[in-house]
Amino acid sequence: MTYCVGILTREGLAMIGDTRTNAGVDNVATFRKLTTFDYPGERAIVVATSGNLATSQTVLSLLTEGFENPQTNEIEKITTVPSMFRCAQLVGRAVREAHRMIGPDPVEGHHAAGFDVTFLVGGQIRGGRLRLFMVYDAGNFIESTVDTPYLQIGEHKYGKPILDRAITAETTIADALKLGLISMDSTMRSNLAVGMPIDIAVIRRDEIRIALAHRVDAADPYYAKLRNSWSEALRAAHQAIPPPPYGQDM
Amino acid sequence: MTYCVGILTREGLAMIGDTRTNAGVDNVATFRKLTTFDYPGERAIVVATSGNLATSQTVLSLLTEGFENPQTNEIEKITTVPSMFRCAQLVGRAVREAHRMIGPDPVEGHHAAGFDVTFLVGGQIRGGRLRLFMVYDAGNFIESTVDTPYLQIGEHKYGKPILDRAITAETTIADALKLGLISMDSTMRSNLAVGMPIDIAVIRRDEIRIALAHRVDAADPYYAKLRNSWSEALRAAHQAIPPPPYGQDM
Repeated sequence: MTYCVGILTREGLAMIGDTRTNAGVDNVATFRKLTTFDYPGERAIVVATSGNLATSQTVLSLLTEGFENPQTNEIEKITTVPSMFRCAQLVGRAVREAHRMIGPDPVEGHHAAGFDVTFLVGGQIRGGRLRLFMVYDAGNFIESTVDTPYLQIGEHKYGKPILDRAITAETTIADALKLGLISMDSTMRSNLAVGMPIDIAVIRRDEIRIALAHRVDAADPYYAKLRNSWSEALRAAHQAIPPPPYGQDM
Repeated sequence: MTYCVGILTREGLAMIGDTRTNAGVDNVATFRKLTTFDYPGERAIVVATSGNLATSQTVLSLLTEGFENPQTNEIEKITTVPSMFRCAQLVGRAVREAHRMIGPDPVEGHHAAGFDVTFLVGGQIRGGRLRLFMVYDAGNFIESTVDTPYLQIGEHKYGKPILDRAITAETTIADALKLGLISMDSTMRSNLAVGMPIDIAVIRRDEIRIALAHRVDAADPYYAKLRNSWSEALRAAHQAIPPPPYGQDM
């Protein structure tokens, strides 16, 4: 399992992803799910992956090595694609190409759901604006807008309530990171298949560079404090609400 | 969709369920999902349902009208079954019987996943203790214990973090109701298929009666206050956490 969230606000883009990969509960490993492409002044792109690791690693290799665009017969790479829209299209094509290369499930005889992947692709390329996309397994994609300033992939439900309540297009990058870490903490408490360490990446709008690429590990003092403060605040919050008046005489 | 939670603590049992049923987003209706069987001093049972409405209504009719136990050839009903364990078994058998009566999906030719149901069954029958079970679509069931004092059915993920953090076997009934309503509120904010009004039911341990059966509607002033207080407390809680130190110079 995986949980990654991308938050796109006026100030910039924050991407947060866990690193746990598992094949059943008895085969757990750490794999980076955020990949950054940092060419300051020219392009800054962050890709987050969820789903089948064999497929997502194949997609990332295709993106970096490049592969042919059947319409132009040109080799396209994430490092040469001219816009973020074209970048999202490239990731979508890479997903379809990866499925073609991997082939159908030998038992089920068709493209198995277990091979599915989903991507977040965010960033800015010179001449264009900062954008955030979610690319589905079918290769199509949607884009984050002012109304929906965040996109999630993987185990998204546990960590969604806090984002729904708190994230707006005006949220600062620092708050976006903080809220993303709270959202990640809620997810990790309820799903063992989402685990530490956590990778974070930040691109500030119009800077066209990775402003921050950082790994938060289990020993990180700020994260430990955030977890405790959040737990205590939640406890205080529900304790401050009076008990229901229904059946007070019961 | 549905969200129901049963919370079993030292003080008693609280059951909370929404009332929204939908067949697609363009066919939404209100159906009670909590059913109470109140025979004070003799038995007090609450049944909560999620899943296919045709199946769950058939199960409830079987439970109240009674149907034959193939091992004893006796007609068993929820109003005559001698213990909560036998009650959970009866619900399980009723689920299997309902699937047999409804028959396979005419298109898919086998028992379709769309016909699935899940039940919570909680209560106390004279001579036995207060117990809470979750009955699966296969007819088997699990029981809530001191380690896991709550069980959920339906859309359970959005509302689970607050329960994971706050519910213990020592939680009072009043707090269990309050936390259940907070959990329900988080779910309704993120899933349109879970909606008002909310039904609640309470059985205090060893009272063997329904101490409270109440419907909380959209105009309920306590619930409106709980929603606002919780939202404000969450906002205050994350605002009180300092921003991350990572890349302060970025």
